Amino acid sequence: MDYLWRPETKNTVVHMLPFETLIVIDKMLSRPAYMQVVDGVIKLIKDGVIQKGDQMPGTRSMAGMAKIHRKTVIAAYSELIAQGWLVAVAKHGHYIARELPKGGIKQWGVPANGYVSGSKLKSTFLKIETTKEFHPHSFALNPSLIIDDGHPDSRLAPMHLLNREYLRRLKQQHVSKKPAITLAPGSLKLRETMTSYLAQTRGIQADLPNILITHGAQMSIYIAASLLLQRGSYIIVGEPGYHVANYVFEYLGANIIRIPADRDGIDDELIRDACEKYTISALYLIPHHHYPTTVTLSPERRSSILNIAEQYDFSIIEDDYDYGFQYDSSPYLPLASIHPDRVIYVGSFSKSLSTSIRIGFMVAASDFIEQAIYLRKIIELKGDNIMEDSLAALIESGDLGRHLKKVNKIFGHRRDYLCASLDEKLKDVVSFAKPEGGLALWTIFNNEYPLKNISLKASKMGLFINDGQIFDNFNARYNALRFGFASINETEIDNITGIIVRCL
Amino acid sequence: MDYLWRPETKNTVVHMLPFETLIVIDKMLSRPAYMQVVDGVIKLIKDGVIQKGDQMPGTRSMAGMAKIHRKTVIAAYSELIAQGWLVAVAKHGHYIARELPKGGIKQWGVPANGYVSGSKLKSTFLKIETTKEFHPHSFALNPSLIIDDGHPDSRLAPMHLLNREYLRRLKQQHVSKKPAITLAPGSLKLRETMTSYLAQTRGIQADLPNILITHGAQMSIYIAASLLLQRGSYIIVGEPGYHVANYVFEYLGANIIRIPADRDGIDDELIRDACEKYTISALYLIPHHHYPTTVTLSPERRSSILNIAEQYDFSIIEDDYDYGFQYDSSPYLPLASIHPDRVIYVGSFSKSLSTSIRIGFMVAASDFIEQAIYLRKIIELKGDNIMEDSLAALIESGDLGRHLKKVNKIFGHRRDYLCASLDEKLKDVVSFAKPEGGLALWTIFNNEYPLKNISLKASKMGLFINDGQIFDNFNARYNALRFGFASINETEIDNITGIIVRCL
Repeated sequence: MDYLWRPETKNTVVHMLPFETLIVIDKMLSRPAYMQVVDGVIKLIKDGVIQKGDQMPGTRSMAGMAKIHRKTVIAAYSELIAQGWLVAVAKHGHYIARELPKGGIKQWGVPANGYVSGSKLKSTFLKIETTKEFHPHSFALNPSLIIDDGHPDSRLAPMHLLNREYLRRLKQQHVSKKPAITLAPGSLKLRETMTSYLAQTRGIQADLPNILITHGAQMSIYIAASLLLQRGSYIIVGEPGYHVANYVFEYLGANIIRIPADRDGIDDELIRDACEKYTISALYLIPHHHYPTTVTLSPERRSSILNIAEQYDFSIIEDDYDYGFQYDSSPYLPLASIHPDRVIYVGSFSKSLSTSIRIGFMVAASDFIEQAIYLRKIIELKGDNIMEDSLAALIESGDLGRHLKKVNKIFGHRRDYLCASLDEKLKDVVSFAKPEGGLALWTIFNNEYPLKNISLKASKMGLFINDGQIFDNFNARYNALRFGFASINETEIDNITGIIVRCL
Repeated sequence: MDYLWRPETKNTVVHMLPFETLIVIDKMLSRPAYMQVVDGVIKLIKDGVIQKGDQMPGTRSMAGMAKIHRKTVIAAYSELIAQGWLVAVAKHGHYIARELPKGGIKQWGVPANGYVSGSKLKSTFLKIETTKEFHPHSFALNPSLIIDDGHPDSRLAPMHLLNREYLRRLKQQHVSKKPAITLAPGSLKLRETMTSYLAQTRGIQADLPNILITHGAQMSIYIAASLLLQRGSYIIVGEPGYHVANYVFEYLGANIIRIPADRDGIDDELIRDACEKYTISALYLIPHHHYPTTVTLSPERRSSILNIAEQYDFSIIEDDYDYGFQYDSSPYLPLASIHPDRVIYVGSFSKSLSTSIRIGFMVAASDFIEQAIYLRKIIELKGDNIMEDSLAALIESGDLGRHLKKVNKIFGHRRDYLCASLDEKLKDVVSFAKPEGGLALWTIFNNEYPLKNISLKASKMGLFINDGQIFDNFNARYNALRFGFASINETEIDNITGIIVRCL
């Protein structure tokens, strides 16, 4: 160890101050003893009791005086050196630094010298260009009722079964002599289960190298977009569309081309027009239940869009976030089951069970998945393989399938009940089209009833209702919201619609 | 619905084929009934039994013949339309398309037409420039012993306490009439707990707006680097260094300046030299136990580096991944406790309990955290707030603190045991410096014993030992590895060192 600094004068005095009274350690405090010594020494410097260039007592002597362990003193001195208050001089001991730390006297335990609420980082960093809030502030009021944008009812989910599996595996792992190997693409068990699950539920044929487990559909979108888009790329999305996906594309610097989505879904002819004008890198598509409008893409347009992708050579990020909820007919199969070499398929188990389950997936050509795995690793190393295994067990036992069958009936009924309730109580206020499936109703309020006002009033009555601004953009004002019906029972629907009536 | 296509001739014939024998639904199959109809119809087209332009039986009639529910037939026809095999004509019925789907006859259930192992995505996407593997392939052999790179022993962790908290909260949430609100910056409870936890354990003063909970330290690094670096930026790292962090910087397009880290840590004078030549955006620093060498940055260099950051105006990403494991002295306080407006502090609970706990954090100036929260949202929306609350409970009850105290003794003992064991059995083979803390030993093998060979031989004896290549780069070959000692007990240490001896 090199000691770069030496006292300039020889007349430094070893302090034999009454440190036993000056530095008092309160063992009741949760602050570590050595930090209390640090606090004490700094206070003594600040108060002028000890001064620049002064020599500190040796660690043994200080320990004796302050009646603390010598190790505590060593730790305190090290810290004081690190902070710049003390300087260690080989074979001489510790001296108060001649140049006290920048900013003068630091007071430990006073937040003003630490990170503070309004603090600013000194160097420059990226300010992401967005003025959008994910949620209005009224969300913070801790409402007793929420209109979510399409969550399942986690109260109905077989979480006890999932947790039983989880705990069993956790215990196994802990008594096991075998080390746990965590795999970045997701647990082998879940990926194996998914090869048959994807085939059986949605006609997607995929091998292990085609599947990546992620921390939710959002991460799949983020990763897919990061690989497909560069600054200046063009991506097509539906309008109105999924704002959070659009935030990703904006963040990546892509140009977003918004194509109107009508009651048959996104307009294929306008997509073709855009392809004539721009080199399209990707299309972000939600064919099954377009977000936010819940519309299902018509078979003709599905076919046409696949042809356009082929002709103009771009990939489709197919977001199938709430596959499995279909009330009047069987679900359509994903585009991924038809044109796998054009489609990056994105899904999630958050809607199948509970939004607290943060497991999603991506299915794509294996060369794409390889890159996606790499990116996923540098973003978060790995997920929770034990939870993934537990989910696989629920799929294999048929519990997930039975659950989905059960809640499909319940959610279908809630959809009908909400539609009837809106027709009855808010006939002249809202308009909507009954969706074939999904977990929400796209509910458009007449312009004479601005959602912003309703949202504000409702928050005072304990109801969170989105003010709809997340769906707006520079040239579109919808005054509409997604009215999640799956997570609320009939009584809750009654209460919610009742509050809305009182807010008009 | 618009029907864009009409049969060109009128002589299409309604098939009254014996569909009851041609299309057989096997209820034992897990494949949905409607998909079996789809499979059957496609097979009939492929076999030439039914042909282009032919009219299909009505859904009612088909249902009667195949003895299935009409809804199943409707779903099957919808699917066949979506895939392009059938065309619906208003008031006329369903016809076999005149243009069969591209690629001719698709065979369902045959993976060759789905995603396959070696498949390629047709359009272009980012190929991340790297030739590095995260783990050597021998990892796949499911070894019975692993030398990890510094994991805690999850067998000792109070996972039962954590899980008790988790289950209790989960049940509460499900019986509760109140909706769950998930917060993207992390659970309020955990962030509140952390304000005092950070102050007590490491002298970091932070308010709520300074804290972001992430999905692990890696995500914190990814987010911090994404905000600090742009394509072409310069970042300084230690050499040898943390390869996974370097992968992030490479992915972001930054120029990585590698500064040698010796036994006092990263060289501050060389950092200063680099600052004279380049405009540095950030320094990635692991002052407490440098990765991979476990060296602690000397107090003088800590102080000097903070001054350089101030002078040359860059931020420091301080990675403190295994704070809390210190065997011979008290831990040093982080730089973040001294210069908060220069430091983005990154930590994790994965090392405190078990690597299966995927909860990390970032502490920084509030304007930086604001952007980080935004980025975290678009990457993964949110984490598992219930698990975060459970962890907070463990911190508040003191269980985490007691656990850390307990394992510090055990891990310190294991460190000593491993060092003695290596000295005894591998004296002329390896060299190492006993670290003051942390969970691993930086173990350098003599060049006459290439780790690549040892790793290969060991894998056949059931031991995973890193081949060390992850630490190498274009101009450095270390023939060294991190020898995690915390997760293996004395018997395991004996077995492991025994196997290494036999591999020489």
